[in-house]
Amino acid sequence: MKALWIEPSGKLELRDVPLPPLAQGECRIAVHLTGICRTDLELAKGYMGFTGIPGHEFAGTVMEGEERLLGRRVVGEINAGCGQCAACRSGMERHCAARSVLGILRRPGAFAEFLDLPARNLLTVPGNVSDEEAVFTEPLAAALEPFEQTHIPPGARMLVLGDGKLGLLAAQVCCHYAARVTLLGRHEKKLALARRWGVEAVCATEEGEATAANFGRFPYVVECTGSPAGLAQAVTLTAPRGTLILKSTYAPSAPPQLDWAKIVVAEITVLGSRCGLFAPALRLLAGGKIDVRCLIDHRKTLDQAVEAFELAGRKGTLKVLVRVADSYSQTV
Amino acid sequence: MKALWIEPSGKLELRDVPLPPLAQGECRIAVHLTGICRTDLELAKGYMGFTGIPGHEFAGTVMEGEERLLGRRVVGEINAGCGQCAACRSGMERHCAARSVLGILRRPGAFAEFLDLPARNLLTVPGNVSDEEAVFTEPLAAALEPFEQTHIPPGARMLVLGDGKLGLLAAQVCCHYAARVTLLGRHEKKLALARRWGVEAVCATEEGEATAANFGRFPYVVECTGSPAGLAQAVTLTAPRGTLILKSTYAPSAPPQLDWAKIVVAEITVLGSRCGLFAPALRLLAGGKIDVRCLIDHRKTLDQAVEAFELAGRKGTLKVLVRVADSYSQTV
Repeated sequence: MKALWIEPSGKLELRDVPLPPLAQGECRIAVHLTGICRTDLELAKGYMGFTGIPGHEFAGTVMEGEERLLGRRVVGEINAGCGQCAACRSGMERHCAARSVLGILRRPGAFAEFLDLPARNLLTVPGNVSDEEAVFTEPLAAALEPFEQTHIPPGARMLVLGDGKLGLLAAQVCCHYAARVTLLGRHEKKLALARRWGVEAVCATEEGEATAANFGRFPYVVECTGSPAGLAQAVTLTAPRGTLILKSTYAPSAPPQLDWAKIVVAEITVLGSRCGLFAPALRLLAGGKIDVRCLIDHRKTLDQAVEAFELAGRKGTLKVLVRVADSYSQTV
Repeated sequence: MKALWIEPSGKLELRDVPLPPLAQGECRIAVHLTGICRTDLELAKGYMGFTGIPGHEFAGTVMEGEERLLGRRVVGEINAGCGQCAACRSGMERHCAARSVLGILRRPGAFAEFLDLPARNLLTVPGNVSDEEAVFTEPLAAALEPFEQTHIPPGARMLVLGDGKLGLLAAQVCCHYAARVTLLGRHEKKLALARRWGVEAVCATEEGEATAANFGRFPYVVECTGSPAGLAQAVTLTAPRGTLILKSTYAPSAPPQLDWAKIVVAEITVLGSRCGLFAPALRLLAGGKIDVRCLIDHRKTLDQAVEAFELAGRKGTLKVLVRVADSYSQTV
């Protein structure tokens, strides 16, 4: 099958990759559409020492495997656990030590004509959710994850740092949960989007660097800049006894220079936050509660995947989608 | 009055310091006994840019101020808030932005014949608690603080890193709360103490460096080593979705080299933790629930305070107490 491949050098190329035999309990899915995530770009820069087919945001159709799923349009939880350990048995496959992760760890990803996932990872997509929306289930679940991990009361004052894809999605989700959301970004175009959702969006380049003195401190800060400098700023802008939610993974060239003593003195909670559950994310999409289509900047085909990655890596680009099969539904 | 003084250079000297006028709402306390804390040693190394009289662990007698307190033996909460702001009004003077902190920030400390604190900061010491025990109220409150900040269920598997004064106190408190406690330290003498409390105490120098592979991962890790390397190790030894409680403040010469991506990928909660409430700490001391006297290594006088700091700074030394007034009660 045709697939995008990341070399150990980080070089991207289209390849013809043989289909492996389908493992017991797994389904083979014909991929319709795949989204490029910041993590994919980091993988191409050496994060996780990844080699192989990337891609973990997808919508597709089940071609082989469990009978009840055949022909169904699905999305899939990206963590495949062993099913046996304490983590898996407590519904926390996301933290199984032996897990594979679609397109990230020990499992070929979604920039390919086909991908395999355990049947238990798959969720059928409601008829009123298009592929272009369904492909956002994974990042939306990640934006929902802090609300699973900790109690964030309605009306909470929240600061989202970074107006990239994840920052915008996080800001929108926080609004949905009735928080009072401030978004600090650098791109007027994106900040304008956020204002539509009721977010107070502030342009850092216009207002100058935000400090605790001129910007205040927030009881909840969501760090979505993906940069060590953003993390250091997030510490500065978190209120005493506040919670700093850390969403970015990256291979840092230098350790973040941050005020460790402040974390202790101000008793800040730093909450690492990764993948969320798909079911609630899909429920929000089906209910039309979250606008994800406004986040799409470019649509490319699998043949153009290398170019699509190049586009996605440009500063200020939002979501780049890669169409794998012609049959995907752009709208329902 | 006679007092120990830290110069901007970090130089320590005994000085004659004039007594300031007593502020409205404050009491003047004749200090009996003062403990040397790791933070005092850090202040002398430049932490917080401190100049003046250090010392925040004390027991003394009220000489001036509120009538009901005159002649009473007291300990005192070290954070003095403005009393007006939202933090103060919610019982969180410890996080008042305008606070002074005894012997740490904008308030002369306890290595002196007298100190001043607001009357509302003072707690009378029960008759069955000696000065040598009461002087541990502050560090014991700090060791209790994680239990105020987060829910740690009885039976929780907890790892305490570091067998210094705070590590030993933390291990003992965790045992008191019925956790299953492992202490990783470097000094057999101290680890032997911990074993008396039911702690599984492991000597790092004998067993080799503890890694996740040979030591396992813990759902709760209390970092009390006070070193950047200890923090990095704590991240390694925290289980997925676990909580890393950060107790050490220091002026780091280099930023900690730690695996930031792991905090996100394993969804670790890093909980900064500082001062605790005095009342529960004093209650545990009055109930004889926590053995603090075993932590005393040396007893010096205020005239020997410079030497006492030198002793306290030696590797492996536990608590050094400085007697200020002759009248203090070593035992009740």
